[in-house]
Amino acid sequence: MGSIYRSAFHASIFQQLKRFWPRAGVLERSVSNVSDLFPGEPSAPKVHTEIPGPNSRKLLQELDAIQNTGAVQFFADYEKSAGNYLADADGNVMLDLYTQIASIPIGYNHPRLLAAVQDKANLSTFVNRPALGCFPPKDLLSRLRGALLDVAPPGLNQVQTMACGACSIEHGQKAMFLTYMRRLRGGADPTEEDMRSCIVNQPPGTPDLSILSFSNGFHGRTMGALAVTHTKPLHKLDFPGPNWPIATFPQLKYPLEDFTTENRAEEDRCLEEVRDLIEKFKKKSPVAGMIIEPIQGEGGDNFATPYFFQGLQDIAQENEIGLLLDEVQTGCGVTGKFWAHEHFNLRDPPDLVTFSKKMLTGGFFFKDQFRSKEPYRIFNTWVGDPAKIVLLEEVVKVIKEQNLLNNVQLTGQKFLSGLQNAQSRYPALLSNARGLGTYCSVDFPSPATRDQAIALLRKKGVHVGACGSSTLRLRPTLVCQPKHVDIFVESFNDILKDVK
Amino acid sequence: MGSIYRSAFHASIFQQLKRFWPRAGVLERSVSNVSDLFPGEPSAPKVHTEIPGPNSRKLLQELDAIQNTGAVQFFADYEKSAGNYLADADGNVMLDLYTQIASIPIGYNHPRLLAAVQDKANLSTFVNRPALGCFPPKDLLSRLRGALLDVAPPGLNQVQTMACGACSIEHGQKAMFLTYMRRLRGGADPTEEDMRSCIVNQPPGTPDLSILSFSNGFHGRTMGALAVTHTKPLHKLDFPGPNWPIATFPQLKYPLEDFTTENRAEEDRCLEEVRDLIEKFKKKSPVAGMIIEPIQGEGGDNFATPYFFQGLQDIAQENEIGLLLDEVQTGCGVTGKFWAHEHFNLRDPPDLVTFSKKMLTGGFFFKDQFRSKEPYRIFNTWVGDPAKIVLLEEVVKVIKEQNLLNNVQLTGQKFLSGLQNAQSRYPALLSNARGLGTYCSVDFPSPATRDQAIALLRKKGVHVGACGSSTLRLRPTLVCQPKHVDIFVESFNDILKDVK
Repeated sequence: MGSIYRSAFHASIFQQLKRFWPRAGVLERSVSNVSDLFPGEPSAPKVHTEIPGPNSRKLLQELDAIQNTGAVQFFADYEKSAGNYLADADGNVMLDLYTQIASIPIGYNHPRLLAAVQDKANLSTFVNRPALGCFPPKDLLSRLRGALLDVAPPGLNQVQTMACGACSIEHGQKAMFLTYMRRLRGGADPTEEDMRSCIVNQPPGTPDLSILSFSNGFHGRTMGALAVTHTKPLHKLDFPGPNWPIATFPQLKYPLEDFTTENRAEEDRCLEEVRDLIEKFKKKSPVAGMIIEPIQGEGGDNFATPYFFQGLQDIAQENEIGLLLDEVQTGCGVTGKFWAHEHFNLRDPPDLVTFSKKMLTGGFFFKDQFRSKEPYRIFNTWVGDPAKIVLLEEVVKVIKEQNLLNNVQLTGQKFLSGLQNAQSRYPALLSNARGLGTYCSVDFPSPATRDQAIALLRKKGVHVGACGSSTLRLRPTLVCQPKHVDIFVESFNDILKDVK
Repeated sequence: MGSIYRSAFHASIFQQLKRFWPRAGVLERSVSNVSDLFPGEPSAPKVHTEIPGPNSRKLLQELDAIQNTGAVQFFADYEKSAGNYLADADGNVMLDLYTQIASIPIGYNHPRLLAAVQDKANLSTFVNRPALGCFPPKDLLSRLRGALLDVAPPGLNQVQTMACGACSIEHGQKAMFLTYMRRLRGGADPTEEDMRSCIVNQPPGTPDLSILSFSNGFHGRTMGALAVTHTKPLHKLDFPGPNWPIATFPQLKYPLEDFTTENRAEEDRCLEEVRDLIEKFKKKSPVAGMIIEPIQGEGGDNFATPYFFQGLQDIAQENEIGLLLDEVQTGCGVTGKFWAHEHFNLRDPPDLVTFSKKMLTGGFFFKDQFRSKEPYRIFNTWVGDPAKIVLLEEVVKVIKEQNLLNNVQLTGQKFLSGLQNAQSRYPALLSNARGLGTYCSVDFPSPATRDQAIALLRKKGVHVGACGSSTLRLRPTLVCQPKHVDIFVESFNDILKDVK
């Protein structure tokens, strides 16, 4: 069954997408009635000091007295920021194509969000944070409908909010563990020994189960999330964690459509590795579920094709284990569909889909089958924050009203063309230009050249991000438009001549 | 040195406190100028339906379609709640002595918090959530000063915000792990092998280290936090976790001052167990730190004396490992001091102190020694939320202006007397009345009688919590006053005659 299914979708991800995406001309018409998605934002970057400037440097020195500030790039002035433009503490204004590590959905100080905070009807939500699992506000369900259920991945009808991405992953993993053990018990209640032993972290109540993850995956920094994260040593070093199976994430060649044969072979090899690992771990730490990003972010913007994800779903179903798609960075429309996995034509919905970042609240969607039967299993004091749900509800409304998924497709195509053209002009410097929606990136020959390009762009007031070892990533807002791409492309071509 | 130090503080916790706490008369005068800490709140509970009432039951049924609702007690109307009174979806108004699992600091809809949200100067903070570790707002330090540094535990000058309690514990543990390994390396850089192996969860980069925790401890529900949590099977069953050492939390007899000899022997036994476990785990999974609540909450409101915590600090220092005090539930003034461990007369500050709940933001204070030298070690996208810091800053101002710690002492003494008097009247039903500040509780003979008492109290519009196996716990706001205690005491004595 799996192979028949796959054979019907053997095209590469980009070939498949052509079927679903309207052509650029159609797109332009569809967004033409909202020619400016963020009226009143600056028309161009403005840089008049180094970044970080003197004010940022002074603030940095002061903040460093109370915590490590090695990751601080500059201090921001959020009050003065607008739309796609981020102001800093020195009065510089940057075109922000990184957006707080991909977590600002519709631009800074969006008027609709400002209005939502000022709406007296929302006031009590902002000051009284409830224990949502015990004493939910009476409007919770209607809020969840507007903010989450209305944009749920097709086929997933259960949702649990959480405070952040890492907690979403942790509790998604727990949902896979408890579902796995429920199946093993075949409907029987846990034994007295199960109950007693789990309290002191001993089997059988604390089973030796595992989650299978992928090389270069990033899922968070708490113990369970970090166990399935395999990016940089700074994220991992010195922190104990379980010895769980790690499969190779396909290392594909770009553009995908030019390397279909090689890429298919690579994905088959990786799928086989997944099968082997599940078999190998059966005796010691059975695999209760798999976790993977639809497109790897922090690990280097690595793509796999729908074929690969379809294959993973086959394996998950054959083994009766969970498949969790981590859409913390790929969700909320950035790929041109609300969820990146909607590009994959999966036979069934994924079992669990985690979200955070642009969604403003953490959480995960899941199938009925992964719902706990007992209370207090997937739980904590706050389990999220209705104040964020209020804001997300407004974000979702804006996305729909302004047809922002179409805008993302249009803007994304322009970003990708821009990267591809630059790559043609600077073939020694750039490679692997790739993207889906505005989730775009390009590789440099080294971390140093990548970092130099980012620094030079910043001097021009264009703020972008890094990922992987030598990748430059673009993570703009959903209201980033072609006119913003023009600014990026011009700056990018301009600075590349100076990158050594 | 440790024993000399301890000998100077051999009195029980309550004997010690007499030295620090003014007598009730003094306290009453000191708060008399703020006779009503929350003007305009209701004067009494009002119950006109069952709780949950018909509206709550209907909402529950609807919400149950999208998630497990087994923990939902009723739906709340936060807009209509005020001060110490929580309104529900059926128009009932309860005196809330549980406050969202101990997480509402100064009452519902406090005018100062409403004003903070409506203050135009704060607006951008509520709608633009930054990646705080990379692009902090320019006013971050001044906000952190007012909200956190000004109330830092004496001697701790470093602070890291986090989104919630579990994340605070997880990253506090990581700070202990990295500090331990840094010491082992003696200042040397990690090796190539360290860097390579940690990416795939293998030693030496992923060391087999442990955190020592205590029976009945509760610290959260993500993998690392759950590993040191030992409360109910529902919290733990089916979730894999590391085999770390678990020492016995002292099981003391109350009132503490009547059992000083027995309790001292019990604490000595537990301290010895800690030493033994650290020794035993040295070969397999060396202990990098210990984690403990100053007063156990979820596990049953269990007290240990200052002697015990002083002893733990001795052991931590002798073994050069960290001591993390988890003040998520005991912090923010509920014991009559801002931090519960301030009652312990520790020779040195604790190494790390975690907070959340009433502090509105998660996070932890820590010593210089537990600060990471490298960036991105204690990190995630958001690392907290400036919107919560804005609110906390206002909470801290109100606590200071209204002298709320004194109010907590006064109110707490009255709660404790009320429980003790009820215990005298119903000796077959109540035992172990205990408390510090308003952190008060009493035991019932069984879970069923405890739950019955809670249900009967709710019928009278008095909302309290449960913990441990058969404990009733009070976790009121900091603006809970003697007049509220009167309502509780009257209702409590009234319902006890019906508890079977």
